[in-house]
Amino acid sequence: MKKLKWGMIGGGEGSQIGPAHRLGSGLDSLFEFTAGALDHRSQEGIDYGKRLGLGDRAYGDWQDMLSAEKKRDDRVDLVTVATPNSTHFEITKAFLENGFHVLCEKPMTMTVEEGEEIVKIARTTGNICAVNYGYTGYSLVRHMKAMVARGDIGKVRLVNAEFAHGHHADAADANNPRVRWRYDPAQVGVSAQFADCGIHAMHMASFVTGQEVTKLAADTVSCIDVRTLEDDAMVNFRMDGGAVGRLWTSSIAIGRQHGLSIQVFGETGGLRWSQEHPNQLYYMPLGERLQIIERGEANLSPEADRTTRVTIGHAEGMPLAFANIYTDLAEAITARKEGRDMDPAANLYPRAEDGLRSMAAVYAVAESGKKDGIWLDARPPMFR
Amino acid sequence: MKKLKWGMIGGGEGSQIGPAHRLGSGLDSLFEFTAGALDHRSQEGIDYGKRLGLGDRAYGDWQDMLSAEKKRDDRVDLVTVATPNSTHFEITKAFLENGFHVLCEKPMTMTVEEGEEIVKIARTTGNICAVNYGYTGYSLVRHMKAMVARGDIGKVRLVNAEFAHGHHADAADANNPRVRWRYDPAQVGVSAQFADCGIHAMHMASFVTGQEVTKLAADTVSCIDVRTLEDDAMVNFRMDGGAVGRLWTSSIAIGRQHGLSIQVFGETGGLRWSQEHPNQLYYMPLGERLQIIERGEANLSPEADRTTRVTIGHAEGMPLAFANIYTDLAEAITARKEGRDMDPAANLYPRAEDGLRSMAAVYAVAESGKKDGIWLDARPPMFR
Amino acid sequence: MKKLKWGMIGGGEGSQIGPAHRLGSGLDSLFEFTAGALDHRSQEGIDYGKRLGLGDRAYGDWQDMLSAEKKRDDRVDLVTVATPNSTHFEITKAFLENGFHVLCEKPMTMTVEEGEEIVKIARTTGNICAVNYGYTGYSLVRHMKAMVARGDIGKVRLVNAEFAHGHHADAADANNPRVRWRYDPAQVGVSAQFADCGIHAMHMASFVTGQEVTKLAADTVSCIDVRTLEDDAMVNFRMDGGAVGRLWTSSIAIGRQHGLSIQVFGETGGLRWSQEHPNQLYYMPLGERLQIIERGEANLSPEADRTTRVTIGHAEGMPLAFANIYTDLAEAITARKEGRDMDPAANLYPRAEDGLRSMAAVYAVAESGKKDGIWLDARPPMFR
Amino acid sequence: MKKLKWGMIGGGEGSQIGPAHRLGSGLDSLFEFTAGALDHRSQEGIDYGKRLGLGDRAYGDWQDMLSAEKKRDDRVDLVTVATPNSTHFEITKAFLENGFHVLCEKPMTMTVEEGEEIVKIARTTGNICAVNYGYTGYSLVRHMKAMVARGDIGKVRLVNAEFAHGHHADAADANNPRVRWRYDPAQVGVSAQFADCGIHAMHMASFVTGQEVTKLAADTVSCIDVRTLEDDAMVNFRMDGGAVGRLWTSSIAIGRQHGLSIQVFGETGGLRWSQEHPNQLYYMPLGERLQIIERGEANLSPEADRTTRVTIGHAEGMPLAFANIYTDLAEAITARKEGRDMDPAANLYPRAEDGLRSMAAVYAVAESGKKDGIWLDARPPMFR
Repeated sequence: MKKLKWGMIGGGEGSQIGPAHRLGSGLDSLFEFTAGALDHRSQEGIDYGKRLGLGDRAYGDWQDMLSAEKKRDDRVDLVTVATPNSTHFEITKAFLENGFHVLCEKPMTMTVEEGEEIVKIARTTGNICAVNYGYTGYSLVRHMKAMVARGDIGKVRLVNAEFAHGHHADAADANNPRVRWRYDPAQVGVSAQFADCGIHAMHMASFVTGQEVTKLAADTVSCIDVRTLEDDAMVNFRMDGGAVGRLWTSSIAIGRQHGLSIQVFGETGGLRWSQEHPNQLYYMPLGERLQIIERGEANLSPEADRTTRVTIGHAEGMPLAFANIYTDLAEAITARKEGRDMDPAANLYPRAEDGLRSMAAVYAVAESGKKDGIWLDARPPMFR
Repeated sequence: MKKLKWGMIGGGEGSQIGPAHRLGSGLDSLFEFTAGALDHRSQEGIDYGKRLGLGDRAYGDWQDMLSAEKKRDDRVDLVTVATPNSTHFEITKAFLENGFHVLCEKPMTMTVEEGEEIVKIARTTGNICAVNYGYTGYSLVRHMKAMVARGDIGKVRLVNAEFAHGHHADAADANNPRVRWRYDPAQVGVSAQFADCGIHAMHMASFVTGQEVTKLAADTVSCIDVRTLEDDAMVNFRMDGGAVGRLWTSSIAIGRQHGLSIQVFGETGGLRWSQEHPNQLYYMPLGERLQIIERGEANLSPEADRTTRVTIGHAEGMPLAFANIYTDLAEAITARKEGRDMDPAANLYPRAEDGLRSMAAVYAVAESGKKDGIWLDARPPMFR
Repeated sequence: MKKLKWGMIGGGEGSQIGPAHRLGSGLDSLFEFTAGALDHRSQEGIDYGKRLGLGDRAYGDWQDMLSAEKKRDDRVDLVTVATPNSTHFEITKAFLENGFHVLCEKPMTMTVEEGEEIVKIARTTGNICAVNYGYTGYSLVRHMKAMVARGDIGKVRLVNAEFAHGHHADAADANNPRVRWRYDPAQVGVSAQFADCGIHAMHMASFVTGQEVTKLAADTVSCIDVRTLEDDAMVNFRMDGGAVGRLWTSSIAIGRQHGLSIQVFGETGGLRWSQEHPNQLYYMPLGERLQIIERGEANLSPEADRTTRVTIGHAEGMPLAFANIYTDLAEAITARKEGRDMDPAANLYPRAEDGLRSMAAVYAVAESGKKDGIWLDARPPMFR
Repeated sequence: MKKLKWGMIGGGEGSQIGPAHRLGSGLDSLFEFTAGALDHRSQEGIDYGKRLGLGDRAYGDWQDMLSAEKKRDDRVDLVTVATPNSTHFEITKAFLENGFHVLCEKPMTMTVEEGEEIVKIARTTGNICAVNYGYTGYSLVRHMKAMVARGDIGKVRLVNAEFAHGHHADAADANNPRVRWRYDPAQVGVSAQFADCGIHAMHMASFVTGQEVTKLAADTVSCIDVRTLEDDAMVNFRMDGGAVGRLWTSSIAIGRQHGLSIQVFGETGGLRWSQEHPNQLYYMPLGERLQIIERGEANLSPEADRTTRVTIGHAEGMPLAFANIYTDLAEAITARKEGRDMDPAANLYPRAEDGLRSMAAVYAVAESGKKDGIWLDARPPMFR
């Protein structure tokens, strides 16, 4: 159970993506965060890396990291590229060519030509080049794929995928820099909403059906005038196994929060899954009733089994709720060490008093239950 | 950002609770797993601890751990007690008395008297004694508490809590050891389903309302004959702030998966939350419409903000899906290192080819969108 | 297909219950509204009855109606009693004793003694005395009953019924006469919320399980101070076939709209149904998956088949939506007859222009579909 | 309150559409079924009409009906045309030209040219020609229209409509006559699924937004080989008020039951409604939370208020459930008259015994509630 060594480029202090990758890579204790070039501002990146425990493997830029790591016997086993989109190609290419495995944030490149080059390098070198379409990691998405592959719904006729939200619907907010860059061709290329969100739905259509998209036709619109790129698109497509596809993506769909969902219809069954409620997969075998497959139920596929961490019925995020008790305690302990008051918003962990009250309630329930439901004091004696 | 040192007692190889605590404690990189007495079989515990990287702080039993750790300057900051229920009291007591902070699995003790003793020790020593009612860690549960505390629903009139599942409904399975022990007074004490599940719902009622239970009346039944303890209970209760409570818990409710939910009704509003869909909190202000509060939305309470890790609309378990890409990659890399084929069920991470295909699709969408929706080849040239 | 003759007592102009009974009795064209004593104000009742087409069988009070009808050869076949609660006993008794079949609004009587008298009279005379627990008329409720009766869930262990709403939660509104009378012992007797709503849930528990309640224990509370009768109750009960029951009813549950629901758990399966979404019945056979039974699906029970009027997937209220087109047309036609403008809120029926536009769209879809999805004018020529 | 006179052409014995129209027209007692030519088999139609009470206004064909009715002073006020599609044009035209108001089943005609002719006749004669897009009759659909019209969501940017079911997904069943005719150009014209179902969704898009479709582009496919017409279509469209439209319709979407739904997104809000749960309308004002509008709530639009018949929280189909009690009673009474056993599937109406048991339960609840929740016998004395 020796951990693999993991490095990251990008994901500097204050970024959202950095913690997400650290959490993801660390969750199962399979990787150890070992090296990084975390910020385009060299010194900030080094300082932050040191604070995260990287020591002298906190680098000022990715070139330094590459040249230093490739000389080491204990070089990192995997490099995650989480820099701005336009730099993905160059960095991914360089690390692959120097013998590293890479996990690149999406989009892998800005052009098709660059993409082909990366594929060729990955193939030539034999190094792993993964791309972070993380939604395919859900246990029941993997089970859908396994069900389709083993023929549970027969030949796939049609896929209908969606990724529709309303978070960029406010015209008054369209020139806010936080939103505007997403519709700026100089920064995101030829497509906005489809490239940002729709592509997740399209990848999932391929992932689940095991078929690749061969051709497509799109209706793209900008509902907010100042945008030159689309904020809503409908894409019809065809797949190499014969499936027909429909895909809707939108960022102006007020009332929709996330909206990544997929429906797959085959000759002998249909499946439906939505990211907002990822623990249920709706399945109807032809001629039977709609049934609900639960994440974690017995006898799912190996693909599902190895990607679930909590028992059936729990929200998949239960470990994160659980972790919050630990973050409360970390704050409580640290505050004591530092001689300060703790953050009141963290002062919520259950205490010995709660454990005691529970025990008193258990005894009262048991006794009342035996005595025809009489009312009993449920408090521990010391709190009466 | 120096990590705190964390130790665990119990949670040996093959247990479910051990990985859950390691995941929970490690999630935010606040704790480092430093010491442990993981198994009642001394050597197995030491071996397993060493494999988990504990070195010479892998102990053969909790007594050894206690005496060794208390002599160290760098002693563990927090000890989690995850041993069989009947040993919680003794271990928790010993560590508290020797100056350690403790997180004890539920139930904290087997009797009220023991519970009172723990409370007194915690108060006398000033050490933290937390109990693991982990469901209170959900971001929106904390927000419910904050809303009630700041008066959003006025004085609380009534709480209705449930924890009803159907996993012990099969009479033919009742003598299966995996199920039977849960209804054996020798092992679980005076109550089965209420002590195991119902108590979570009751604690949550207290947590959310900020009121303690003062008295109760219970109707307990054993729907399966061989059981001497209850598998279904209805508990009516009263709280010290005047709230009326109803609580239903069951393990024979076929069709229910988990069923922890809570409804709180006040003078000026009502709230409803369910663990199976933890990202939505239903709120109706008196005289207005039912509205849906989403985890991660803007302007929630500090209690909610500090306990959420992914943006609005994502399932709270999204980081775990994301982590599955990393576990795939760990398997892929390790298999290469070990010169073996990788687990096919892990061979599902998105590849450079997927990144390339996505880019080709993006360009096709953009072009089709500009050209009145004509059909275009969506494949990268190298795959045509 | 000669219609039966139907009479009503009560349900005068402006009442809610009158139109409901007229609609219900007339829906399948099985009854003809023939006679009535609709109002305690004699002349108003006669006038209103005449306007409803009753002619000289519009009576001034129920005594007149009884004495006149019993002399006729073509007397009414069924009398509905929809008067204030306290008069149900007297009227029902009189009609039964004179040879009429009766459908009495709930509650049938104000006391148990009166109830026993009615039962005895019904048995002695052999006349039908029905009570209007109308929720048992839902197709899938009847199917639940049939499933339980034929053993689909085995011996019933537990029933959990609810009828919880929040429409009387406003303390400021508690003395509003529209609400207050419901909690006034002088008008409603010994119980408010349980007698008004909870009793529907309890009747449904009996209806579905085929078991009668033998004993019960209740926790009743008045959450609003001015009330002497309960606005929230939890009732535990036992049934003569061995089932355990739980029943929660509330009128202060802010955020709940109607909340009549029932869960039945047996030895080999569980069922769940809710009045707010009456077209789906959730069913889990022990050890299998939760499945969704749809109203109108093939091969349901005869009890379900004869009580459904629209095909699967339609809301059960579809005929009422459909009827609204007719009410629009009635208003349009009547306005023309009366030489006035029609109600603009009714001026919404689809017109020839809509039929024409639809046809143009159909042709455009067919042609575009054949021509690789080109854009086509979808308007009829005359509207271009 | 004199009823209008209503006539029907088509809808003969055993048809589904006939009873639906009789129910719809009769529901509010605004129309009286007065005349009809119900069957293309002359004598069968006359016999059936007589059994339905039409007397000598039961005609053998529509020509007879037309010539007889137009001579009467008390001619029918409205004629419903519910014959096979290909005859709609001819009949509708004839009645309109002779001074009758007409409600024509959908599709109004088989060609655009015929459609234009009908529109012209309707305009010239001034007679009402309505088309039965009945789904627009739902109360909350009308409220959506009112909300959009009064500006609640600002200028409409996008409409997304669906009508997707899976009832024609079985390839083995495709040649079954019950299904096959729906895909036969000789019988249905140029389009199958779009013309049958999709058109409802498109009409609803126009109805709700108040905008007409100007152009469209379609992707139509036949997922089952033997079909020459489409069983799945995606239609993009534009509307005359600037709205963009997307519409998906399918008959091979296994797992979907009915699937008529509509989402409307404007500059300042979004709306979502689904026919399968027609009592809830989801509304998000820009920058606020998703809220749930309930059919029947206070202060809705006049358009909504006049089209709802039951109070908030009830399923819209509640009156139909209620009516089932009456159909039970009709069967019970008729069976007695005819001296036969009643249909056991109808023998389910609540009886005096149920009314009595309810009263006993009410008293027991009230007493137990007063006496600290003691258990009491809940049975009426006569049943103990």
